[in-house]
Amino acid sequence: MTKSVYTFGGGVVHDDARAKDKNITGGKGANLAEMAEIGLPVPPGFTITTEECVCYLKDGADFSDALRAEVAEALAHIEAAVGKKFGDAGDPLLVSVRSGARVSMPGMMDTVLNLGLNDETVKGLAATSGDPRFAWDSYRRFIQMYSDVVLGLDHGSFEEALEIAKEDRGYFADTEMLAEDWQELVGEYKSIAESELGRPFPQDVNEQLWGAIQAVFDSWDADRAKVYRRLNNIPGDWGTAVNVQAMVFGNMGETSATGVAFTRDPATGDRHYYGEWLVNAQGEDVVAGIRTPQYLTKRGREAAGAELPSMEEAMPAAYEELARVFDLLENHYKDMQDIEFTVQQGKLWMLQTRSGKRTAKAALKMAVDMVGEGLIDEVTAIKRVDPMALDQLLHPTLDPSAERHVLTTALPASPGAGSGKIALDSDLAEKWANDGAKVILVRVETSPEDIHGMHAAKGILTARGGMTSHAAVVARGMGRPCVSGASAVSIDMASRTLRIGSAELKEGDIITLDGATGQVMQGEVPMIEPELAGDFGVLMEWADKYRRMRVRTNAETPNDCRMARQFGAEGIGLCRTEHMFFDADRIMAVREMILADDEAGRRAALAKLLPEQRSDFTEIFHCMAGLPCTIRLLDPPLHEFLPQRDEEFAELAEDLGIGADHLKRRASELHEFNPMLGHRGCRLGITFPEIYEMQARAIFEAACDVTAEGGDPVVPEVMIPLVATRKELEILRALVDRVAAEVFAEKGRTLDYTVGTMIELPRAALMAGEIAHEAKFFSFGTNDLTQTALGVSRDDAGKFLAQYVDAGIYPRDPFVSLDVDGVGQLVSLAAERGRATREDIKLGICGEHGGDPASIAFCEQVGLDYVSASPYRVPIARLAAAQAALNA
Amino acid sequence: MTKSVYTFGGGVVHDDARAKDKNITGGKGANLAEMAEIGLPVPPGFTITTEECVCYLKDGADFSDALRAEVAEALAHIEAAVGKKFGDAGDPLLVSVRSGARVSMPGMMDTVLNLGLNDETVKGLAATSGDPRFAWDSYRRFIQMYSDVVLGLDHGSFEEALEIAKEDRGYFADTEMLAEDWQELVGEYKSIAESELGRPFPQDVNEQLWGAIQAVFDSWDADRAKVYRRLNNIPGDWGTAVNVQAMVFGNMGETSATGVAFTRDPATGDRHYYGEWLVNAQGEDVVAGIRTPQYLTKRGREAAGAELPSMEEAMPAAYEELARVFDLLENHYKDMQDIEFTVQQGKLWMLQTRSGKRTAKAALKMAVDMVGEGLIDEVTAIKRVDPMALDQLLHPTLDPSAERHVLTTALPASPGAGSGKIALDSDLAEKWANDGAKVILVRVETSPEDIHGMHAAKGILTARGGMTSHAAVVARGMGRPCVSGASAVSIDMASRTLRIGSAELKEGDIITLDGATGQVMQGEVPMIEPELAGDFGVLMEWADKYRRMRVRTNAETPNDCRMARQFGAEGIGLCRTEHMFFDADRIMAVREMILADDEAGRRAALAKLLPEQRSDFTEIFHCMAGLPCTIRLLDPPLHEFLPQRDEEFAELAEDLGIGADHLKRRASELHEFNPMLGHRGCRLGITFPEIYEMQARAIFEAACDVTAEGGDPVVPEVMIPLVATRKELEILRALVDRVAAEVFAEKGRTLDYTVGTMIELPRAALMAGEIAHEAKFFSFGTNDLTQTALGVSRDDAGKFLAQYVDAGIYPRDPFVSLDVDGVGQLVSLAAERGRATREDIKLGICGEHGGDPASIAFCEQVGLDYVSASPYRVPIARLAAAQAALNA
Repeated sequence: MTKSVYTFGGGVVHDDARAKDKNITGGKGANLAEMAEIGLPVPPGFTITTEECVCYLKDGADFSDALRAEVAEALAHIEAAVGKKFGDAGDPLLVSVRSGARVSMPGMMDTVLNLGLNDETVKGLAATSGDPRFAWDSYRRFIQMYSDVVLGLDHGSFEEALEIAKEDRGYFADTEMLAEDWQELVGEYKSIAESELGRPFPQDVNEQLWGAIQAVFDSWDADRAKVYRRLNNIPGDWGTAVNVQAMVFGNMGETSATGVAFTRDPATGDRHYYGEWLVNAQGEDVVAGIRTPQYLTKRGREAAGAELPSMEEAMPAAYEELARVFDLLENHYKDMQDIEFTVQQGKLWMLQTRSGKRTAKAALKMAVDMVGEGLIDEVTAIKRVDPMALDQLLHPTLDPSAERHVLTTALPASPGAGSGKIALDSDLAEKWANDGAKVILVRVETSPEDIHGMHAAKGILTARGGMTSHAAVVARGMGRPCVSGASAVSIDMASRTLRIGSAELKEGDIITLDGATGQVMQGEVPMIEPELAGDFGVLMEWADKYRRMRVRTNAETPNDCRMARQFGAEGIGLCRTEHMFFDADRIMAVREMILADDEAGRRAALAKLLPEQRSDFTEIFHCMAGLPCTIRLLDPPLHEFLPQRDEEFAELAEDLGIGADHLKRRASELHEFNPMLGHRGCRLGITFPEIYEMQARAIFEAACDVTAEGGDPVVPEVMIPLVATRKELEILRALVDRVAAEVFAEKGRTLDYTVGTMIELPRAALMAGEIAHEAKFFSFGTNDLTQTALGVSRDDAGKFLAQYVDAGIYPRDPFVSLDVDGVGQLVSLAAERGRATREDIKLGICGEHGGDPASIAFCEQVGLDYVSASPYRVPIARLAAAQAALNA
Repeated sequence: MTKSVYTFGGGVVHDDARAKDKNITGGKGANLAEMAEIGLPVPPGFTITTEECVCYLKDGADFSDALRAEVAEALAHIEAAVGKKFGDAGDPLLVSVRSGARVSMPGMMDTVLNLGLNDETVKGLAATSGDPRFAWDSYRRFIQMYSDVVLGLDHGSFEEALEIAKEDRGYFADTEMLAEDWQELVGEYKSIAESELGRPFPQDVNEQLWGAIQAVFDSWDADRAKVYRRLNNIPGDWGTAVNVQAMVFGNMGETSATGVAFTRDPATGDRHYYGEWLVNAQGEDVVAGIRTPQYLTKRGREAAGAELPSMEEAMPAAYEELARVFDLLENHYKDMQDIEFTVQQGKLWMLQTRSGKRTAKAALKMAVDMVGEGLIDEVTAIKRVDPMALDQLLHPTLDPSAERHVLTTALPASPGAGSGKIALDSDLAEKWANDGAKVILVRVETSPEDIHGMHAAKGILTARGGMTSHAAVVARGMGRPCVSGASAVSIDMASRTLRIGSAELKEGDIITLDGATGQVMQGEVPMIEPELAGDFGVLMEWADKYRRMRVRTNAETPNDCRMARQFGAEGIGLCRTEHMFFDADRIMAVREMILADDEAGRRAALAKLLPEQRSDFTEIFHCMAGLPCTIRLLDPPLHEFLPQRDEEFAELAEDLGIGADHLKRRASELHEFNPMLGHRGCRLGITFPEIYEMQARAIFEAACDVTAEGGDPVVPEVMIPLVATRKELEILRALVDRVAAEVFAEKGRTLDYTVGTMIELPRAALMAGEIAHEAKFFSFGTNDLTQTALGVSRDDAGKFLAQYVDAGIYPRDPFVSLDVDGVGQLVSLAAERGRATREDIKLGICGEHGGDPASIAFCEQVGLDYVSASPYRVPIARLAAAQAALNA
């Protein structure tokens, strides 16, 4: 029979691997068992598995007799180990009850201490400890804690009662309370609990225990826990374990203490012990801030200029023992540990150890240092650093010590932080930026028309749109911080004012965005610039050694290309040619082309665009010399390029010598109900072949010119977007081949190039075997593939996506992390069918998912040849690709 | 080696089935071979296969030596059979060259006669026939025809030259031309040809022959042929065969003749020979209308009151032989035949036979009659009638003899015809209709707001939208004729005028729509009412006997339900509850619900809607007593229900006692970029569960009430739309089950119901195995599945769809006929996975494809349990389902 309860401590050694499997006994339980087995002083206890939690939450039923029997047996194990009996009025066993999921997870029930106290056992505790004050203090702590976290009563009443009790007696500090005072307060606490609860505070110690177990299980589904899981991508079906452990007391006088510590500095990664402790206290006192904790080490105390003695100074023996444990644990776990301990009357007890949370900088430093120390190898170092954490290192961040006046929190759409004057339109943003001001562009949503404003801005805030809305995607590509989907923002363009939550602001007011948290703050918050320490380069080098997939970048400006190469990009995976169409000096020609009445008109306008586009490509090919460049031909529906405002129509009409009304009618004819599914992508190439002809010509002319200058040749990979049928690609490949031949003939040289397609529609994935006959490469456009497979517009998903993730309908935002179960099927099926037709077909991904570590892991599984990410995500992708290869 | 040329006639009997396989030798070639083999008088000849055409068009290259050798051999066969030599100056063999695809296809090159004549052979022909006039007439005919159809010269020049020749000589008719006159004209024709061509008219008979062969192949890809194929869903990769046949001459004097005939009347289906003939003429004279053809039978002549003698009267012996051939052919082919024949100096020759085209009415009558005659069995009769042709029988149609002033031709979006006053908005359309006027609603496009106007109108014309645009779908559902995507229509709402092509019209002007052809006509064109003859019922009864799939209907009004039952619907496959939301007396409550600030506000508005919706369901359940009814909960994005115009906002604001600006802001918050992929379907149910609760309650209350009255109980099948994940359905199924339990408890009764889902997103299809755990049935929503799988918005597809079909990218409009290769994979995969999880899961289709015969055939293959179609398509679906079952 599978066990549901595992004991630890008191000399127990399990041969059942489940006992130390975090998935079964949770992080805390597994580590307690492990520490006990390697001989560290761990108070005996037991762990109820996460599986029981999942069962409980699913069936909502009572606990089984089998479980009750296992718990009783495990309790007997503790009793035997410590020589006390649970509920024994003479010499009672007290226990702590704690939650413990696979990963540490704020938001769940944390701890109940001193469980097992009641009106009888408190007397036994007083007698055996010889300290009635300690016993009654423990009892009142227990009532207060249990009432709060298990019974859900308002803790304010208890705090108030304690305040009154002290006032009545003229005390200032809790320490002045005598045993009788605490005893009296216990009486009051019990009445408070009874009146709120409608029944007496439970005296039955088993009822206390099961209540606490149930509370731990229930807390898995508390709202705060759900939100935390959503933000941290923790599946809702893991559940939590429950740890029940014999109490040890840090509050048994001046030879007792409690503390938390890290084996290295979690903020910097420096190799010093780091921690806090309190004499004569229980664990919650350290965290609760009632007393100011003291530094653990002399070094720490001196560095902070603190008065109160460090543990190193005050309890040298216990400290020495602790330091020995630190080294032992770090050697054992091969990682920096986050530790909780208690000293009871001079004896050290370990209550918890886990791999410590750390800043990105610390993670990087520790990983590299530990390789140097011979503690871990490169592979472990690579696996140890969360790729997403690198993001913090690549963008300026807010000074964590600065005060923040947060107006609202929305989606952390693009990392980094920025401050500036609010500009409500892109022209103004650009103007102010040109005048030297720092600007934050605030829009209901952005469109391709806003590119110049976004570029000019230090940050972008939108009222609508999700993590992959236009604003988010473009901002990430540009490396601009962005907060999107801020529904608390409402803009009144008429008065050029806006509300953010309850604050009234006007254009020109200064705000600060934190793209890493989604916070929008009033005024300017001080920043710290990124430090690309040497450790960064070292880790990247190791990553490159172990990864199989290539990493390219999504870029279309020379600036982005240069930055991406600096970050290690090995080519361009997606160059979106339409971004070049929005430049102020081109948009007129673009509009002329779109609004032309016939092909001749379009060709005339395209002739104006050709030299512009060719010079774009020339610059890009210079930047990317020697590397492959995937260039996607025009993709968005033409109406995206059209004027929006009357003045613009008037200007264009004058320019073209046509009536503005005529233009407006033409423009309205281009309106689409669902532009995402409209006349775009290769459909433009089929219906207006002259557009793709011009683009192909610009590509090949530029490539020939750059090669003629003697530079390393680029390999243009011409990519046809939105293909759903073999025939589309057949027609357009023939067009590209024809133009290439023409240009090569004119230029008197040839060069290597390929033609391929995006796989971004479900039908394309299904028909990949057919399409591969025409395609030298597939690039998975997983943004659009997600939109179509799930039937979700990323621009409109904000209305329900958060609720969907909370309800567990999507494990994560499917635009951020690939929906492996659904969309993933299409990707792997297309890869398989594509390869069946063309063994050496090159496969890559160029959706936003190309910069998401979980999605990159999937790409490795499917065996893609490369991933492509926005420039700032290139290092993340390199590390994630290495991890994926190592985990494969 | 596979043969590319098959001979026929002259005693040839092939044991190669390809010789008589229409896919290989085309309809014409296969039937010539077959007629020859059953002993009918067929001039000897040969057929070049369709495969050669496909090769030729693909490779664009010259003809292979192998082909040339086979043709030479086949030509020798003709020469041997008729005892003349091709190009022999003494006694030349002349041939005809004709195209012949699998199915008869106007738009391709038809015929070149008299090929093999040149300046030398014409003399031989004159000598052997003893008729120089005949020889020179044949030669000039040949030059003219060859110049026109093979060389692509302007035939006007030739006609002009003939006119001048007659004028010069003072002749009125061609028959007055003497041999010398023709000879002289031949000289002129040759100079015309040479000057236009830049080289002499080809004298080499082999050059003539290969030129004609090439012209036939090329004509397969002529624009007219492509358009015909698109309109008739003929694949572009079939190709055409070429038939080369020894000439026989109907123009060798008064004992010669030529004619076309049908074995039964193709218009009515009556069992009489029917046809036309001309004495002393060649085939093209009958068709060209230079001379008025005479009736074939005495009966026909008398019925028409014609003067000129029938063939029955004028050539009794040849006629008798012909009649014998008619009976023989009808008995052989078991179908009405369309025949071409020539009488050369008293001897009958058969030049073509094929199954004759017929009207829907005739098809029906002939199918039923032939079963009565014992000629065919029921199964053949069922297979013989094109289900789509039934459409003609179910709607009023324009009198075919009436004159039409066609303004434009656009998409035939919903069959039937209608005349009426142009109304440019739905309110006016309804008002005028209430006043007793016949109205045609003309809109740029329609939206759900136009339902009342569409209902009031006799027909709908839209400037935008495809075959499955809102207008088209709703019109078909209502049985209203509709012409959509009429880009020649431009509306000026300010002046309430419109242009259709070059015509200026104003509101109130009368137009006529022909929904079967897409024609828009000025004024009122007379109609004929549908005749549901007894044959219709008989055929339907047979169909029901042989089909496996059930046929349901898409309906939501009692009227539609009644009509659908009358047409044989066996339940409702799709009841779109949102259509009920647009009623004038409900829309206010709907809007109140949508614009409510919180759940309480929504619930208050929903409480007003509950009794309305319940009474809808009560009516429907009465109509559908004893049958299953699939009811889809609210599907469209909420903003579809919002006011559009300022007055409406003002009205609503007053009604709700809220500021209109506040309302407008709320409304603008609901705006979506891609509503198709937005906050709709089950996403509404998840985020606003109270809406689905109200709808479920209305369904179960109505079902209980109807059952309580003692009627046959319906089985409500509650359908959750737009599901992409198992979890969505799990949550919403629990909601429906809870409401059902509540209602059953209140009503003190229970009834059978099921909960299922639409499969209309690619992800749902892929995850069908998971989803089936929660679903008792799947209904394939192939409209949306097509939109998402192909990434094509049906409302926006009009901009490129026609071009896509012309280019062969889509074989047909994928919204009309299911894309079996792509979308079909999703359907069959979902069916398979769904059944793997739940063996008895009920599977149906409720997209527009449920009424399309080709798609129904696919549904049969996949083994769906039922198809659901709009009421007027129910008979079509019944017949198509029977055909599908018989062909399975």
